[in-house]
Amino acid sequence: MPARGDHDARRRDVSQAVWEVLAAHGFGGLTLRAVAAHMGASTGLLTHYFPSKKALVRHALEVAQEHTQGRDRFPAEGEGLPGLRAALLDVMPLTPEAVAMSRVWVSFWDAALGDDELAAAELRRYERWRGMLRPHVEAALRLGQLPADADPEDVVATAAGFGHGLVVQALFDPARFPPRRQAALVDGFVALLGR
Amino acid sequence: MPARGDHDARRRDVSQAVWEVLAAHGFGGLTLRAVAAHMGASTGLLTHYFPSKKALVRHALEVAQEHTQGRDRFPAEGEGLPGLRAALLDVMPLTPEAVAMSRVWVSFWDAALGDDELAAAELRRYERWRGMLRPHVEAALRLGQLPADADPEDVVATAAGFGHGLVVQALFDPARFPPRRQAALVDGFVALLGR
Repeated sequence: MPARGDHDARRRDVSQAVWEVLAAHGFGGLTLRAVAAHMGASTGLLTHYFPSKKALVRHALEVAQEHTQGRDRFPAEGEGLPGLRAALLDVMPLTPEAVAMSRVWVSFWDAALGDDELAAAELRRYERWRGMLRPHVEAALRLGQLPADADPEDVVATAAGFGHGLVVQALFDPARFPPRRQAALVDGFVALLGR
Repeated sequence: MPARGDHDARRRDVSQAVWEVLAAHGFGGLTLRAVAAHMGASTGLLTHYFPSKKALVRHALEVAQEHTQGRDRFPAEGEGLPGLRAALLDVMPLTPEAVAMSRVWVSFWDAALGDDELAAAELRRYERWRGMLRPHVEAALRLGQLPADADPEDVVATAAGFGHGLVVQALFDPARFPPRRQAALVDGFVALLGR
């Protein structure tokens, strides 16, 4: 029993170290050696958990998804466009934790563009994210908050694009895109949709 | 004289190989070894041009900027919003060459997030790109194509965000974002601004 507990605790330590290396260096800086150094452990210990770089990257993707799914969310202050606003704010780098998360996912784009399996995972992640925006857009259409002839798929793709593009700008230029301005730009974009 | 010509020709070969490695593998896959292998040359020859990884990355950044600046552009069919439309289409992955360019720049985000010098270069690149969008937005305001109370900096940042976010979606999902749909989404976004 204690051995089992130790094993689980060690796995959590490894996952935490993987996350911290990701947050600091992105997928591009994720290596067995970096995770081992971060834990003060040997690379040999790490190969026990991850027989290959691929296995490490797969685990890192799971860890990043857990952090992303477990993050605090903005409460939607109403159905339709207010829900879309909250969903967009949910991906903005508004806090140090959210900056780390954005940094990890932007780095994943590079990793995914160079690997078919990871590219397929990123394509599913995008479908999932657009799937989270879609009910808000559909509600907005139903509630008459959007022009009646708006194509919901186009609005979803436009909003997803705007959101990620603002994330990247804010990551590189936090002085010009502090949290208050990010939120104002999201508000402005949502107002544009409903105009 | 011939030696000089040989030298210049070899430099061009090296730059071309750097571009081809970038286009295939992004900044994350750019190594002296990869460029040497691509040229069928020795890594030793490459260290003659690039004494360090850093020197290689700096040169690659210049090469990527040259390719980007030298690309074909969309003609603007009028001042203001039509100019903004053309500038956005200029960054969309609408052709195989533009896909390669987008792939390179998306990969550069990861490289830049892990390196202060490259992050500063990316910040300047963003300022430059927003600087290319700004005259179109200002003309649109002057021509009454945008609501008179629109903030030009906000419109520029929103358009830059939308553009890059659509680039990323299209890179990962070319089946759902073929050139025709990318162009339609750009048209829809520009119409939204002017509504």
